[in-house]
Amino acid sequence: MQEVAILGVGQTPVREHWELSLRDLAVDAGRAALQDAGLAKVDAIYVGNMTSGTLNQQRHLGALVADHLGQRGVEAVKMEAACGSAGSAMRQGLLAVASGELEMVLVIGVEKMMEKSGEEITAALTGAADADYEVIHGISFVSLNALIMRRYMHEYGYQHGDFAPFALNAHANGAKNPNALFRKAISQQDYETGRPVADPINLFDASPIGDGAAALLLVPAAKAPQAVRVIGSASATDTLAIHDRIDPLWLSAAEKSARQAYDQAGIGPEDVDLFEAHDAFSIMAALSLEACGFAGPGQGVRLAQEGQILPTGRIPISTMGGLKARGHPVGATGLYQLVETTLQLRQQAGPAQVEGVHLAMAQNIGGSGATVVTHILQKPQ
Amino acid sequence: MQEVAILGVGQTPVREHWELSLRDLAVDAGRAALQDAGLAKVDAIYVGNMTSGTLNQQRHLGALVADHLGQRGVEAVKMEAACGSAGSAMRQGLLAVASGELEMVLVIGVEKMMEKSGEEITAALTGAADADYEVIHGISFVSLNALIMRRYMHEYGYQHGDFAPFALNAHANGAKNPNALFRKAISQQDYETGRPVADPINLFDASPIGDGAAALLLVPAAKAPQAVRVIGSASATDTLAIHDRIDPLWLSAAEKSARQAYDQAGIGPEDVDLFEAHDAFSIMAALSLEACGFAGPGQGVRLAQEGQILPTGRIPISTMGGLKARGHPVGATGLYQLVETTLQLRQQAGPAQVEGVHLAMAQNIGGSGATVVTHILQKPQ
Repeated sequence: MQEVAILGVGQTPVREHWELSLRDLAVDAGRAALQDAGLAKVDAIYVGNMTSGTLNQQRHLGALVADHLGQRGVEAVKMEAACGSAGSAMRQGLLAVASGELEMVLVIGVEKMMEKSGEEITAALTGAADADYEVIHGISFVSLNALIMRRYMHEYGYQHGDFAPFALNAHANGAKNPNALFRKAISQQDYETGRPVADPINLFDASPIGDGAAALLLVPAAKAPQAVRVIGSASATDTLAIHDRIDPLWLSAAEKSARQAYDQAGIGPEDVDLFEAHDAFSIMAALSLEACGFAGPGQGVRLAQEGQILPTGRIPISTMGGLKARGHPVGATGLYQLVETTLQLRQQAGPAQVEGVHLAMAQNIGGSGATVVTHILQKPQ
Repeated sequence: MQEVAILGVGQTPVREHWELSLRDLAVDAGRAALQDAGLAKVDAIYVGNMTSGTLNQQRHLGALVADHLGQRGVEAVKMEAACGSAGSAMRQGLLAVASGELEMVLVIGVEKMMEKSGEEITAALTGAADADYEVIHGISFVSLNALIMRRYMHEYGYQHGDFAPFALNAHANGAKNPNALFRKAISQQDYETGRPVADPINLFDASPIGDGAAALLLVPAAKAPQAVRVIGSASATDTLAIHDRIDPLWLSAAEKSARQAYDQAGIGPEDVDLFEAHDAFSIMAALSLEACGFAGPGQGVRLAQEGQILPTGRIPISTMGGLKARGHPVGATGLYQLVETTLQLRQQAGPAQVEGVHLAMAQNIGGSGATVVTHILQKPQ
């Protein structure tokens, strides 16, 4: 397989973008990635997006974005795997370049949601869960995560306040990222007095949705020796419905995709300097850390309490704010994570820069762990 | 690039499948393809689908299908490009195998629509067009095609009755295919007295939607020397909105993807023995024949009138009924076309078998030509 490098990155701030349409957002991020790479034309465009069919009445995003980006005619398609859509687009873009048939592939994650009502958005997001066996009972996506968090607290003996370090770290880091939706640090008291969303999940356990787009330009590594390289890439799945899993507290798809990525890279979790976790909810950050081998079962929260997830810790996470503070434009998030990871490896993360990062990992989770895509990136030599 | 072969095919009949869910349909076709290939496990599953997010409240089809098919854990994702979704899934599956990283890839196209109301389905299908610049004016997808057909008639001097050979051929061929939705030949008078849908398109110019799934199992050609080989594969795009095109009667993405596929295969249109055209509407069959070089501009209808699209003609199309008679489960159609093409090349098309087929082509069109995927298949030696 051909090795693949990241020649360009682009992103829009995560906001309520009332003045920008779905296509505008995708084009802004895509154009920024092209400019960053110094390229004008690409061979293909892969778009990651979750809700455009319903929220934007648009089921033909690939061709739409290609045309609007001045790339009319090129191969283009949209990938969908709930909140794992953008990571999946990255994975397919990588395979396409690796095949040798396509040379320059632009992957764009985009989501435009905020103009819709809370009810419409909540309904669209339940599409990440099992429509026939979970959603039919009236459960929302937040509630599903609340069930997992409650079970984790019961099983491992944690209190709600123990999860605070995830939110505190994310918001402190988000304050240093101009593209973050929330740019204000929070206190332990802020966390503990947050409004309940779906008990035990409160406002500071749940990431905020938003409008935004992020993009990467992929090329064969041989063509870009100075660029950040992708040295591990894997995607795995699990049951959609949580009740079908042997252990609801173990993200087997996260473990499987991480292990495959480690094997490809020839490394282990101890070699990773920075980890962009999919902290859609505090509990997901903990479970992701455990599945990837950064902490033992039930020890993800302990790791956070010990300060190991801080920028100065053993394995910094959410270094640009994470989903929690940067914001979670669902089908775009996987590429925000990879753009941020690339910026960290390039030493271009500004005030959010983490020191001494040579190997970094990003993990994008769709649903409650049903699709998990893991990428490992290496700093240019 | 590694060459790719089709080791297994599977399909469900196109019907109103009241007794089968979305996942049931996908599993039936996927399992049939696995059985046909004599395999139990695959490395990845790519699902083509257009409307599940809205009509089935399901935005996480890859993981869902993988689990239900007994392949829990494997890499899986859904591709969406309106009615070109399944062809796009095939294209991505092929690139994945070609990359050398994945060896056995199952591609499944599935659509479950018929339990919804006509209004809901019509609204979902407009997602193939430009939401911001076409659909906002209230136009439906059929109406867009009616505008193109009317312009074609005006430009090239045809009457409505001149398009009859497309419907007559499709329905005569569909009568020989047990998986077709409509299995009854029609007469010129049936065609001419068909109920109007969106003038000049009548009931016999428009393909019927349906529920169904079709699947292919892809492997490296070196592993399956006796299997049908994919010798050309290309995808191209055009503007979503018809008013943005230089010539609304020329499918430039169809031309581009066909030319790329011809170049890869080292052949020209004169070498193709059978063509599964995307006859969603009579006018699309004509435009597709022209864009692929089987007829000159404005001559697609003439070619049909001369009988050249019949099973005994120069370039048989819709040989198992086409979209018109087999039915058009939108996001699954591209794989029905490829399953049928494979069966023809294997001499397994039953009463619908066309004689002397060595090279066959299938073209899947999304929207009014905004995404077009073309594949050329070769008979095993």
